[in-house]
Amino acid sequence: MTVTAPAGFEAAGIAAGIKRSGALDLALVVNRGPSAAAAAVFTSNRAKANPILWSQQVILDGVVSAVVLNSGGANCFTGPEGFQVTHRTAEAAASALGIAAGDVLVCSTGLIGDQLDGEVLEEGVLSAAARLSADGGDDAARAIMTTDTTPKTVVIDGDGWRVGGIAKGAGMLAPGLATMLVVLTTDADLPSGELDSALREATRVTFDRLDSDGCMSTNDQVTLLASGASGVVPDAVEFRAAVTAACRSLAEQLQADAEGASHDIAIEVRGAVTEDDAVEVGRSVARNNLFKAAIFGNDPNWGRVLAAIGTTQARFDPYLVDVSMNGVRVCHAGRPDAPRESVDLTPRATHVLVELHAGEASATILTNDLTHDYVHENSAYAS
Amino acid sequence: MTVTAPAGFEAAGIAAGIKRSGALDLALVVNRGPSAAAAAVFTSNRAKANPILWSQQVILDGVVSAVVLNSGGANCFTGPEGFQVTHRTAEAAASALGIAAGDVLVCSTGLIGDQLDGEVLEEGVLSAAARLSADGGDDAARAIMTTDTTPKTVVIDGDGWRVGGIAKGAGMLAPGLATMLVVLTTDADLPSGELDSALREATRVTFDRLDSDGCMSTNDQVTLLASGASGVVPDAVEFRAAVTAACRSLAEQLQADAEGASHDIAIEVRGAVTEDDAVEVGRSVARNNLFKAAIFGNDPNWGRVLAAIGTTQARFDPYLVDVSMNGVRVCHAGRPDAPRESVDLTPRATHVLVELHAGEASATILTNDLTHDYVHENSAYAS
Repeated sequence: MTVTAPAGFEAAGIAAGIKRSGALDLALVVNRGPSAAAAAVFTSNRAKANPILWSQQVILDGVVSAVVLNSGGANCFTGPEGFQVTHRTAEAAASALGIAAGDVLVCSTGLIGDQLDGEVLEEGVLSAAARLSADGGDDAARAIMTTDTTPKTVVIDGDGWRVGGIAKGAGMLAPGLATMLVVLTTDADLPSGELDSALREATRVTFDRLDSDGCMSTNDQVTLLASGASGVVPDAVEFRAAVTAACRSLAEQLQADAEGASHDIAIEVRGAVTEDDAVEVGRSVARNNLFKAAIFGNDPNWGRVLAAIGTTQARFDPYLVDVSMNGVRVCHAGRPDAPRESVDLTPRATHVLVELHAGEASATILTNDLTHDYVHENSAYAS
Repeated sequence: MTVTAPAGFEAAGIAAGIKRSGALDLALVVNRGPSAAAAAVFTSNRAKANPILWSQQVILDGVVSAVVLNSGGANCFTGPEGFQVTHRTAEAAASALGIAAGDVLVCSTGLIGDQLDGEVLEEGVLSAAARLSADGGDDAARAIMTTDTTPKTVVIDGDGWRVGGIAKGAGMLAPGLATMLVVLTTDADLPSGELDSALREATRVTFDRLDSDGCMSTNDQVTLLASGASGVVPDAVEFRAAVTAACRSLAEQLQADAEGASHDIAIEVRGAVTEDDAVEVGRSVARNNLFKAAIFGNDPNWGRVLAAIGTTQARFDPYLVDVSMNGVRVCHAGRPDAPRESVDLTPRATHVLVELHAGEASATILTNDLTHDYVHENSAYAS
């Protein structure tokens, strides 16, 4: 049910002919109201795709009635023609739905630098609009997949209201404010300002702490649409918790399907002076290719963890640090502790605990290992 | 001849028994004078190995008579015992050579977190001291190899003086002020202050612009020893040029032997507002795993170049940027230009030109591609 689980939403996912394979490649999510409140966060990459440039304008008034998403092309670095294709896509949705183009978000994903065919997009949007249904969420989730092997969906139940969501993303997965394409819906009745603060709080501790391969996309967009169809104004704390839980679930699903990965690694940093320090330390480990390759080889190479955190500006003494892997403390106070042989890194789920002994703050960064399959997928597949 | 090409130097490289394989693993380079002026730069990683902690003290007075280098163990995160091993190594050299331990630099390379055997080191140093010779530079170059497949050496001739050098390094190759282990010698007669400024200027534009895998070592050290044995005080500009040429040659040799690499990539950034901006842009591309995997696959994926530079703070407009690969401009003003098919990426030497059109500054970063062999070597080999 995904984005159509909350009341007030319809969706469709179709094969518009953007992908040569004939797979589903265009999704439409429509908010039937009564409210059209919305919030969105975008990639912090300065190289932004045309749909990002468009959608950043659309969200300014906090009103969104529909989201068009396509796979099969990122529409990034495609010049003014590319922006016209995005505009035409929004106009097609507006015309089909009887709404304003300025209330239509557009999201695209796929190869950077390839021009999309505006006519194919326009016909696809009209076709999708004709197939909108309150059961269409699952098709929409499938239509936004690129190298994803499985659709990512979530439904969280509140007290008389719901949050539903879909996500795509398998590579170029180091979101800065958002990850790849995510649409969240809710039938809760909340103004756009409250949606915005809930969404920003949620993405800060979920998608922003997912760093699969250190590569930030040009097309990241996370949108939250509220129909108000439940008639319920939820408790602010409960609503934020639900949005955060939805984002966390989708982030973990993205991690689990990361291109070529054989380990899902949670790098937990404790004892930092500030949360920002903890995030910086965790991210430096997550981006260290030697550490990531060692985990692929089931090698608890804690020296590479310390070499990585030594490159940060975070406040701690490298010679007081403890490092544990899957529950075994292999480094204590900057010296060898338990023997490497006592660590079992064969499970896919991997836990690395870095204790800085400098303060009380903590954070966890999610990443993946560096594998032959990652290299294969990203050398053989142009994306 | 390497470090023994300039007059006044002796060296040896022996198998001390640190490596289980029985390969050469200990080098000794001795400056017989008349001068003992020296300079050194060290890793900027905050996680510094014991030999770095020792050598940073030794270099303070600008006087160095000998350098001991071992492979087979980094002596990093090995606690006070590890520091004692470094101290014992220096004392052994001092005793054998009749010099002060405070004039002996120590360099180590190999696995982080493994304790070295002080007795093996001491005996190795005594044995090396007994075999010192003015022809020993080549053995010294071989004795510092770890995963290197070939020794790295250089000799630059000046006007009546010379610069010679050896280097090791094949992974964890993103120097911050220095790379892995490098010893440069010269028979020019210069005080340590001039050696220091020449060395810093040289490393800034050579080793500091080599970024093979984004991983900064805990043990990087570059040393320049001057014997004054030629009796010549060289022109300062000529001497700096020679030291820079020696460092550039060694940096290129390191790049060419980087673990598992199949392409040597020069990322040239032109039209930046400042040189720092150019370096930041080049390094962001050099560290982008998706770009590196694409080059491995001979795929001129310029979208990944733009996505990488969009994450920097450098001053430029992403939509004015041109990108060329091996002479073919594939992106012009943020839009597709020549077809991807017209780029030949099969040669090992790869040139990526990024023209920012924002200013007059430029810089070139050297890197390598991300390959199956890189993943294999760094998952199967604990280093």
